[in-house]
Amino acid sequence: MEYEEPLFFRVMQYAADAGGDVIDMVSGNPDWGSPEGISQGLHEYADLGGDDFQYPPSDGLAELRAEIAARRDVPVEQVVVTCGGGEANYLAMAAALDRGAGREVVLTDPVYPYYPGKTSMLGGEAVYVPVADDGSLDAADVRAAAGDETAAIVVNSPNNPTGAVYGEETIGELVAIAEEHDALLVSDEVYDHFDYSGRFASALGFDSANRVVTNSFSKSLAITGFRVGYGVFPPELADAARTRHMLTNVAGSRPAQYAVLHALRTTDPDYYQSARDLLCERIDAFTAALDEAGAEYTTPDGAFYVLARFPGFPGTLENVYQLIDEAGVAGMPGETFGESKADWLRFALVTPRAEEAATRLAEYF
Amino acid sequence: MEYEEPLFFRVMQYAADAGGDVIDMVSGNPDWGSPEGISQGLHEYADLGGDDFQYPPSDGLAELRAEIAARRDVPVEQVVVTCGGGEANYLAMAAALDRGAGREVVLTDPVYPYYPGKTSMLGGEAVYVPVADDGSLDAADVRAAAGDETAAIVVNSPNNPTGAVYGEETIGELVAIAEEHDALLVSDEVYDHFDYSGRFASALGFDSANRVVTNSFSKSLAITGFRVGYGVFPPELADAARTRHMLTNVAGSRPAQYAVLHALRTTDPDYYQSARDLLCERIDAFTAALDEAGAEYTTPDGAFYVLARFPGFPGTLENVYQLIDEAGVAGMPGETFGESKADWLRFALVTPRAEEAATRLAEYF
Repeated sequence: MEYEEPLFFRVMQYAADAGGDVIDMVSGNPDWGSPEGISQGLHEYADLGGDDFQYPPSDGLAELRAEIAARRDVPVEQVVVTCGGGEANYLAMAAALDRGAGREVVLTDPVYPYYPGKTSMLGGEAVYVPVADDGSLDAADVRAAAGDETAAIVVNSPNNPTGAVYGEETIGELVAIAEEHDALLVSDEVYDHFDYSGRFASALGFDSANRVVTNSFSKSLAITGFRVGYGVFPPELADAARTRHMLTNVAGSRPAQYAVLHALRTTDPDYYQSARDLLCERIDAFTAALDEAGAEYTTPDGAFYVLARFPGFPGTLENVYQLIDEAGVAGMPGETFGESKADWLRFALVTPRAEEAATRLAEYF
Repeated sequence: MEYEEPLFFRVMQYAADAGGDVIDMVSGNPDWGSPEGISQGLHEYADLGGDDFQYPPSDGLAELRAEIAARRDVPVEQVVVTCGGGEANYLAMAAALDRGAGREVVLTDPVYPYYPGKTSMLGGEAVYVPVADDGSLDAADVRAAAGDETAAIVVNSPNNPTGAVYGEETIGELVAIAEEHDALLVSDEVYDHFDYSGRFASALGFDSANRVVTNSFSKSLAITGFRVGYGVFPPELADAARTRHMLTNVAGSRPAQYAVLHALRTTDPDYYQSARDLLCERIDAFTAALDEAGAEYTTPDGAFYVLARFPGFPGTLENVYQLIDEAGVAGMPGETFGESKADWLRFALVTPRAEEAATRLAEYF
């Protein structure tokens, strides 16, 4: 079995090895700092020792699951705490493919590259639906691509890499399509705290046995290294997800879960608003500098990525390495995300030097 | 796809719900406390914040991998840090089954129940080799069971639940059998710090493209809830393991990895020796009380479990619940571990009240 390995780590390594002053816009690692509750929670946990250092419940600390269930207004039995959003998506896609109701997985193009990687790892086959130039997804295109063989439809809103936010109507349609074909809509909502459009709609708004919502605290609490996420599974699939989770990881990491619980309880809404405000400023500054450079680009409605296209400079890995070496800016090759964005580069706005990076790019081109 | 769900968590929950004074001998959670370095490491990490709270390298913090490689005397490229021994075994068994060299997985009977669970989850088929009454494994029996269809041979030494320790000759034979059939020996050595016989032999002593060694810090540092383990993969399989790890979990939890690294650097060998001494005392006291009770039992050479058999009281889940309710002692049903130990109960010596538990059992029977 061949795996499609995501390139993130390889590009980050290249940038790190390059030396010199490279502005890192690769990783998707928030740079604005975690809320105080994370550090406080870890300190508190570190002094507990004994029983508290042993296995948490396999599906997550009871109080954390209850907190998540209350915030998302779902029955706690449907919540499985995972090793980040990555494992939540793995469990959801495995649940879809294990049901014996088809082996095709409908994905968008451009696509977050872990989805096709997981699809082939799990023995499924990816089917791609292109999105519009502005990143919006036409549910009619998904309907046309779906059929008896469809096991899952996997979407991500707010979207990485396009920055698109799918509205309520689109999400409702996607749930309906999943129901029509006895498939599973997997709605990956890890950027739900980063909606600048006010149009974000969670798939949790549509109660259905055919939708799973995945999420994580990696972005919202700026702790991508902690690996705490969750899936909300319909009752029919929750046990299968729990069992696969147990057989894969036994349980998630308790220090991280404890810290997240503490942070959820102590973090003021201002923390999330400040992060959004900061990102809006960066989007404005970065895209203004791209205008100066004569580049084409997307202005994200959500998440924190900008796609940019420079004339005669396709988004290959080779060109990304060249920009690292010669312009001192590290982005992600557009070809990582599928055919439709092969001419583009993705820049993550996770550095205070986003504007400077755009200026460097303008000077280089 | 049907999963075989390990019963550990269900029995632990029953014991917790039972109320009253139940001595917990179910879990395998060490009760002797972690070394100071774990707590210190977490405190240190909690104050780092920023970049240090973001993704570690997918295959583990570089310094932790280097520390493991140095201790095990293997090339660092072969080390993948995982979400506990559980994920390490998942990656190893997946690597074996993904090679297209058969789909049978040779296991022992009795067996650690996660192995058959993982086998069926990964689309393999379990083949069982019974061990002798004293827990020892005859390599000739494994050879008889192995064939062209063998993808993996999975063993655990020191063994849970038998307490057997496989010597160098046996391990060498198992590596040879794996090589003969182009299969993978998966040697799960999570109890390697708990060998009372002096006969423990790591499969790392046999350099081979056909063996993977899995391990974790859950038991040796008394942190089952942290989820830090590792696999040592032959070069031919290390990339496949890395990719599956990335596509499943992205990375392990960084606070836990940081704490483990700190503890490895600061923990005196006395810590491990004290745990062994304590367990030897408990084994003596528990088995002496079982003698009083007229029970048959195993005396472990390693790990920290005792199998006991009480006349006319088979090791069913129902009987385990009865012992919790009526004797105030919680063990694991022998049937969990396979047919050969269906008459037995497994008791984990992870409580200072092991002797009291045996007395309760003696009074009950």
